[in-house]
Amino acid sequence: MVTAQRATSPEARLPKGFRDTSAAELRETGRIVAKIRDVYETYGFVPLETPALEYSDALGKFLPDQDRPNAGVFSLRDEDGQWLSLRYDLTAPLARYVAENFDALPKPFRRYAFGPVWRNEKPGPGRFRQFTQFDADTVGTDSPAADAEFCMLAADTLAALGIQPGDYVIKLSNRKLLDGVLEAIGLSDSGRRLIVLRAIDKFDRLGLQGVRQLLGGGRRDESGDFTSGAELDAEQIHVLLTTLQAAGPSSSAAVGTLASWATALPANATVAAACAELEHIERLVRAAGYGPERIRVDPSVVRGLEYYTGPVLEAELTFEVKNEAGHGVRFGAVGGGGRYDALVERFMGRKVPATGFSIGVSRLQAALSHLGGGMLAGTGPVVVIAMDKERIADYQRLAQRLRQPSDGGPPIAVEVYLGSAGIKAQMRYADKRNAPCVIIQGGEERAKGVVEVKDLIEGSKAAAAIRDSREWRGSRPAQISVPDADLLTAVRQVLARHRA
Amino acid sequence: MVTAQRATSPEARLPKGFRDTSAAELRETGRIVAKIRDVYETYGFVPLETPALEYSDALGKFLPDQDRPNAGVFSLRDEDGQWLSLRYDLTAPLARYVAENFDALPKPFRRYAFGPVWRNEKPGPGRFRQFTQFDADTVGTDSPAADAEFCMLAADTLAALGIQPGDYVIKLSNRKLLDGVLEAIGLSDSGRRLIVLRAIDKFDRLGLQGVRQLLGGGRRDESGDFTSGAELDAEQIHVLLTTLQAAGPSSSAAVGTLASWATALPANATVAAACAELEHIERLVRAAGYGPERIRVDPSVVRGLEYYTGPVLEAELTFEVKNEAGHGVRFGAVGGGGRYDALVERFMGRKVPATGFSIGVSRLQAALSHLGGGMLAGTGPVVVIAMDKERIADYQRLAQRLRQPSDGGPPIAVEVYLGSAGIKAQMRYADKRNAPCVIIQGGEERAKGVVEVKDLIEGSKAAAAIRDSREWRGSRPAQISVPDADLLTAVRQVLARHRA
Repeated sequence: MVTAQRATSPEARLPKGFRDTSAAELRETGRIVAKIRDVYETYGFVPLETPALEYSDALGKFLPDQDRPNAGVFSLRDEDGQWLSLRYDLTAPLARYVAENFDALPKPFRRYAFGPVWRNEKPGPGRFRQFTQFDADTVGTDSPAADAEFCMLAADTLAALGIQPGDYVIKLSNRKLLDGVLEAIGLSDSGRRLIVLRAIDKFDRLGLQGVRQLLGGGRRDESGDFTSGAELDAEQIHVLLTTLQAAGPSSSAAVGTLASWATALPANATVAAACAELEHIERLVRAAGYGPERIRVDPSVVRGLEYYTGPVLEAELTFEVKNEAGHGVRFGAVGGGGRYDALVERFMGRKVPATGFSIGVSRLQAALSHLGGGMLAGTGPVVVIAMDKERIADYQRLAQRLRQPSDGGPPIAVEVYLGSAGIKAQMRYADKRNAPCVIIQGGEERAKGVVEVKDLIEGSKAAAAIRDSREWRGSRPAQISVPDADLLTAVRQVLARHRA
Repeated sequence: MVTAQRATSPEARLPKGFRDTSAAELRETGRIVAKIRDVYETYGFVPLETPALEYSDALGKFLPDQDRPNAGVFSLRDEDGQWLSLRYDLTAPLARYVAENFDALPKPFRRYAFGPVWRNEKPGPGRFRQFTQFDADTVGTDSPAADAEFCMLAADTLAALGIQPGDYVIKLSNRKLLDGVLEAIGLSDSGRRLIVLRAIDKFDRLGLQGVRQLLGGGRRDESGDFTSGAELDAEQIHVLLTTLQAAGPSSSAAVGTLASWATALPANATVAAACAELEHIERLVRAAGYGPERIRVDPSVVRGLEYYTGPVLEAELTFEVKNEAGHGVRFGAVGGGGRYDALVERFMGRKVPATGFSIGVSRLQAALSHLGGGMLAGTGPVVVIAMDKERIADYQRLAQRLRQPSDGGPPIAVEVYLGSAGIKAQMRYADKRNAPCVIIQGGEERAKGVVEVKDLIEGSKAAAAIRDSREWRGSRPAQISVPDADLLTAVRQVLARHRA
């Protein structure tokens, strides 16, 4: 027999950075995930699920922060002493899967995946240590058409979720572009490369001045925290900032203006290759009918992850929301991705090019609740009031009649109150459950062969809005008495009224 | 730039006991989970999601094997030195959640939850270290009506999945029954209690003789492994085996035969209380129309988890399948649950009774594939063959016309082949993807303003079945040529033909 251990009674709390998810939010997540899946399926992607734990060496060191190799992930030792880690994204497990099953897979291999990932990082407001991603990836092709497809897929997904053109933009850049510029200013093999990439990644948030500080001597933020800089010289900073601001081919009316665009950029083979890829992708998306208001080149896009090797993209929501200080700011990125041609190669020793796109589901959901005015609580189940605790069997039978209608109609969600509270508390319970109506059958009703159906939503509206209750009762009663045999019909009428 | 590290190249493999899940299986899981959810919702349960990691002390020591307190779970230390564990079921996190949010919750609190759980145990055939559970629980009521409801819910769920009455049975027992019997034979406080419960739990699999050995001197299995026994004396074993075989009230035609049933059992207050609860539950389910062919008392049901305190139930599939040795055996349990009145009390120091039911989704899915003859691979996307790699933009535009039909019709899943292979290999790729048809437009077709649509399923049927290809071509061509403007209609016709 289990006994309560009061002396060592644990505290009921979650570790910092983790959270529980409520019914209303889960229902909304389900709706969003279904829409994303529908769009991904129309592009020919099929689902794949990999487990939460992998060998740490299989996940690799391509962590969010490569310079702290073993930080950032949750790791533990298996019984045989090998390190396992909780996946920190869905891409590293995909690379392991492809390498493990290479010969059996159709190539290019297209899969989507949806699920939690874990980051062992300092949590913050809206920043959790477990969150959900929805990814699609194409493995086994180096064609820029695959990258173009992800730009289109990203735009289609946001559109399918009801986000209007103008409220979102897919921004496209190329890691090779920055590689070429870093080459040009003598930084390509420098340990400062990563610091520079991180500084540029903050362009959206900090603006030109903030990035200039991070590329130079460092930056002190409003809270007084100091971030040390990359210590570049003035000329190096100038070239980088010019690149960030270089208007890509998107900004001109005509397609294919590499020559004019490239004049603003340092001239070398890497930069030229980057621009050619971007132009190719842009030509493809324009041909498929996506204008620059939906997909455009923006050299400031970096994406944090170390493993990208070519085109990178970011899905940004452009409408304004208030930040903590009450200022209007762009909502920002809800997804991103890019080409990672070396990830499968780690296992196989041969080139297996790949590219993909990932949506941060919670962040997208937060954005949609801004647009749509928050989540709907939804309607709870019909509650059968336990008037007479000795007659629970009757009430359960009554509930079954609604759950499995004898005419084959759609099932109705219904529960019998199973606690020990009195009638008034049961009514409060039904309100708390968001019940559309309650069903009441005490001794008196039973003797008459009737059931009372009380419409809670009409009832509370009526209670709030109408002064003369007599007048209201004549028009639309919140509580009706029906013969027992008519219960199903009466409950259906209440539900239909609420839907209307 | 990321470089391949060949010297330290990791092996692409999963840790033992973990597995990847394919598209076909995931689609089937999705279908099953949706059905379960529909049934749970009709009983008024609402979704709740808790994170994968919890403080180890919050999960408690109610592990599958209580005598190895820290074994069985995956645990790691947080940065502040506290132990975190991956949840090993969905019940322990629920208890933490209820204790943490007690005042805000409607009571009784009904929630369902679905997701992976992790066990750090020795894997075996069909026994994985990550698997999926689907739970429903009612917290805050000690009414046997709540236990009765889970019996009904379990039966309804299996029925909704298409399992016929007679192929499943919900077996009901009571931990108090065994507690009372152990009391009667002087074992209630013995360290051997757990060994006895485990032995009885194996009744289904090992039969009377195997359990007798485990209760006595021990048992050597076919592989030669020896499991030591509980070392009970002959009289103790006799009483226990009599209890296991005691026919519950279900077996008699009339309801409420406690007196006759109880004569086979030791007489004490605990046994009497257990029998009274079982009779109460049985009366409720019979009144709701569930006969003994669907729900019945069976004293051999134990359920492994330590935390149960009252009624326990098990959903068993009774049809036969072949075991590894080729013998016909009952499929066995696909779910179970019971009352755990002390789990929330650990946190709160006050009684919060609770009861629940959990389905092992993978195991249920395996059962359904036995019944239904395996999974359907499903239809893949339409594949647009890349006849001319320079014209990918045209092929993508063509794909968009099917993805987003201009007449507002349902979207069609379609992909452009993006690899580098030739036409023949592309056709093999389309077959591997299970494509319903491919779309072909080379230079010749383009000049004529037409598109070729090749029906792969008809095509392969035809190739397999018909000798005289000329004859077949006259009747139902696998490849047709349509004007470019009629592409959507032609593809819809192929898809409709496959559905029919």
